[in-house]
Amino acid sequence: MTERLVIIGGVAAGAKAAAKARRTNPKLDISVYQEEADISYSACGQPYVISGLIGQRKQLVIRTPDDFLKDDIQVMTRCRVTALNTSEKKLTVIDLTSGKDSFVRYDKLIIATGARPILPAIKGLELEGVLTLRSMSDLDRLIRYIEVMKPKNAAIIGAGYIGLELADSFRNLGIATSVVEKAERILPKFDPEIAQRVYDHCVAHEIEFVLGDSLAKLNGTGGQVSALETESGRSIACGLVVLAIGVRPNIDLAKQSGIGLGATGAIAVNNRMETRIQGVYAAGDCCETTDRITGNPIWMPLGDIANLQGRVAGENAAGGCAEFPGVFGTAIFKSFDLNVAITGLSEQSALQARLNPISVIISAWDRARYYPGGRELDIKLIASKDSGRILGAQVIGTGSADKMIDIAATALLGKLTCEDLENADLAYSPPFSQVLSPIITAAGALNSKIKKARA
Amino acid sequence: MTERLVIIGGVAAGAKAAAKARRTNPKLDISVYQEEADISYSACGQPYVISGLIGQRKQLVIRTPDDFLKDDIQVMTRCRVTALNTSEKKLTVIDLTSGKDSFVRYDKLIIATGARPILPAIKGLELEGVLTLRSMSDLDRLIRYIEVMKPKNAAIIGAGYIGLELADSFRNLGIATSVVEKAERILPKFDPEIAQRVYDHCVAHEIEFVLGDSLAKLNGTGGQVSALETESGRSIACGLVVLAIGVRPNIDLAKQSGIGLGATGAIAVNNRMETRIQGVYAAGDCCETTDRITGNPIWMPLGDIANLQGRVAGENAAGGCAEFPGVFGTAIFKSFDLNVAITGLSEQSALQARLNPISVIISAWDRARYYPGGRELDIKLIASKDSGRILGAQVIGTGSADKMIDIAATALLGKLTCEDLENADLAYSPPFSQVLSPIITAAGALNSKIKKARA
Repeated sequence: MTERLVIIGGVAAGAKAAAKARRTNPKLDISVYQEEADISYSACGQPYVISGLIGQRKQLVIRTPDDFLKDDIQVMTRCRVTALNTSEKKLTVIDLTSGKDSFVRYDKLIIATGARPILPAIKGLELEGVLTLRSMSDLDRLIRYIEVMKPKNAAIIGAGYIGLELADSFRNLGIATSVVEKAERILPKFDPEIAQRVYDHCVAHEIEFVLGDSLAKLNGTGGQVSALETESGRSIACGLVVLAIGVRPNIDLAKQSGIGLGATGAIAVNNRMETRIQGVYAAGDCCETTDRITGNPIWMPLGDIANLQGRVAGENAAGGCAEFPGVFGTAIFKSFDLNVAITGLSEQSALQARLNPISVIISAWDRARYYPGGRELDIKLIASKDSGRILGAQVIGTGSADKMIDIAATALLGKLTCEDLENADLAYSPPFSQVLSPIITAAGALNSKIKKARA
Repeated sequence: MTERLVIIGGVAAGAKAAAKARRTNPKLDISVYQEEADISYSACGQPYVISGLIGQRKQLVIRTPDDFLKDDIQVMTRCRVTALNTSEKKLTVIDLTSGKDSFVRYDKLIIATGARPILPAIKGLELEGVLTLRSMSDLDRLIRYIEVMKPKNAAIIGAGYIGLELADSFRNLGIATSVVEKAERILPKFDPEIAQRVYDHCVAHEIEFVLGDSLAKLNGTGGQVSALETESGRSIACGLVVLAIGVRPNIDLAKQSGIGLGATGAIAVNNRMETRIQGVYAAGDCCETTDRITGNPIWMPLGDIANLQGRVAGENAAGGCAEFPGVFGTAIFKSFDLNVAITGLSEQSALQARLNPISVIISAWDRARYYPGGRELDIKLIASKDSGRILGAQVIGTGSADKMIDIAATALLGKLTCEDLENADLAYSPPFSQVLSPIITAAGALNSKIKKARA
């Protein structure tokens, strides 16, 4: 009998795992069960469909079930896995279209069930115009609501990446936008001075922030949301509310079937992406991973990490041998004209981890000053005062933050010190860089600071 | 008596060394002797002044003698050092304006005399319109010649970076351009398939190449160049000839004073940038360095390397402690719409170094396919078949070659394997990258190829 790999979930990790499993083992029987109608789509592109920058939602769909079928991968959409029996290696699946149950056996299983938005326990969630943004159905609902109702004002609950990207999209549509955030400041993973710059930039683009306050109640008129009230008693008029306070891993199936969870509450896996049950793998937003600097378990629900993990899970489930060593927490987003990026630990989290950090912030241009089109950026670089080893970086500006942060992330991967990075042989020519890359300038400044601190 | 640092040469390495020495030691007496009227300029920007993209030559000047004086660094321009006595720690300097000789003592010395264009031993070099491009005077002459004589056609001798950048500039000015190259192909440091793409792109932009042939003779009319003849007997009409066959280090002073040269013929230095004579340092195009992959001495006359070396020489000469570990041969240039970059060894040079290389070429977009403004690039990644360690990369395309090559160069610095790089945690968001960075895709493909080769 042909060995059968079943994958639960097909957005990022699941889709990637299926493709990689096929490349690893041409003979494997591969099936993907996906609850939504769409599979293999880029959720990270959704804010740009809302803003209108990307014309059609179908552009976000990378591969259709038909595309997978060409690689002999069967995709069952609108199918929910309702039960998992790992001792019998069996799944119960309900076809959401027909309502029929069926049973599916597997030899190897990959759980890629993703995550879902956290909903606050408040009154008014059922009102029309109270939405989340995660699935393609969420996107469809949000776009349709804006088209039909033409809200003049919107409130976004939560000032994380998605909340801020959405705020940008709403301003592009001319919608007055408030962002309500429980914490005293936005972007808690960034150091305060970087987060402040993003805050100021958003304020300059007429985002109204309500910080240190949280959503208490939603009020409606004729079944439709019209205002929100905060804990502190503030009332904000809003014809649209998007709940973006965060996500949690979809672990119901894992929990119910005795697959172990880790310290973060997501599914625990080893570096082969295998759960505590042999032959059962997990990948993407439903599972946890390792922080490569602290060595601690961390939950990092990001699309690129899901793809990396899916690739490893797919290869291993198909009989190959691959490892996923963990993450550095690298992330980037665009907020109006600013590019904002982070890798590794912030200075704050390095302090919390008692890593004795030292840091510099430098301002630079991303190409030769005289060459047209150059843009500015600030780099904050953080290292261990003891060893000089780089611990993290944050980059903000209109310039090439993506390039700088990727160099820094690769430096983390190589466990480089400031002195190593200061002497990096990076590519220089006036259209592409300053004669010394800004990241070299930052590393040099930090190395000098460390030398002085030691002297 | 205040300790005195003298620096010979003030373009890239010398200017940087002076600035770094001042930051390292505020009390040091620092003087820079510079033969040209200009100091601290970006020679790499010259092609863009010629093309007209950069309006004024003065934009290339980073700091003037006055700027240096504010940091208490004395700069003597138009002063040539004619003799060096290292046992008496004394220089003889001629002021080219007044013609007067003077004697200068030093405690520490940095030689940053740079390099000069190689001139072929042929007839007709004295003709008007036969030029080189290196110094700011060269730039002035070339610009003036084009303005006054309005040549309809030009020949560039040598198809290196400068030759190709100049060809681009000349085409921008509407000048019919031929490039004569002795070798059978352009860009010998790149692998043939990458060089071929640059060649084709240049040909599409109406550059005429004459390969495998060299300049034999220059003919003139009324003292002005009008045509060249090649070794094979070909005649090419040209109202302007630029000799860009390469440069050689300015080592006359070093040689005459017994400062040792290395295997490459440039000044030998240790990793503190100190020559074989204690207290005498060298930096920039006049000295050699180490190839960090092969461990061999290498001469790499590039502006960014000069800056890195100048910084280390300046710090050490001022009593600090810094090391320069060598280079990976990273370089980038723009040829019309193509960005072309290299780091580490080409497959050819890895073969020559008997490093058992294996390689892949992948094509990718530099951001999410659906996000506007994405551009294409091809990455060739080379690794050791035995260890999986990355040996080099070449990137070509309209896309972000600079970002990809800098990630690869940082991977070389960290001695990463394909497997390491395949799991890099790089920054993803649709405006900045594909969900998996093209360099990750390349590393993954190469890692799979290595696994298959071993299986």
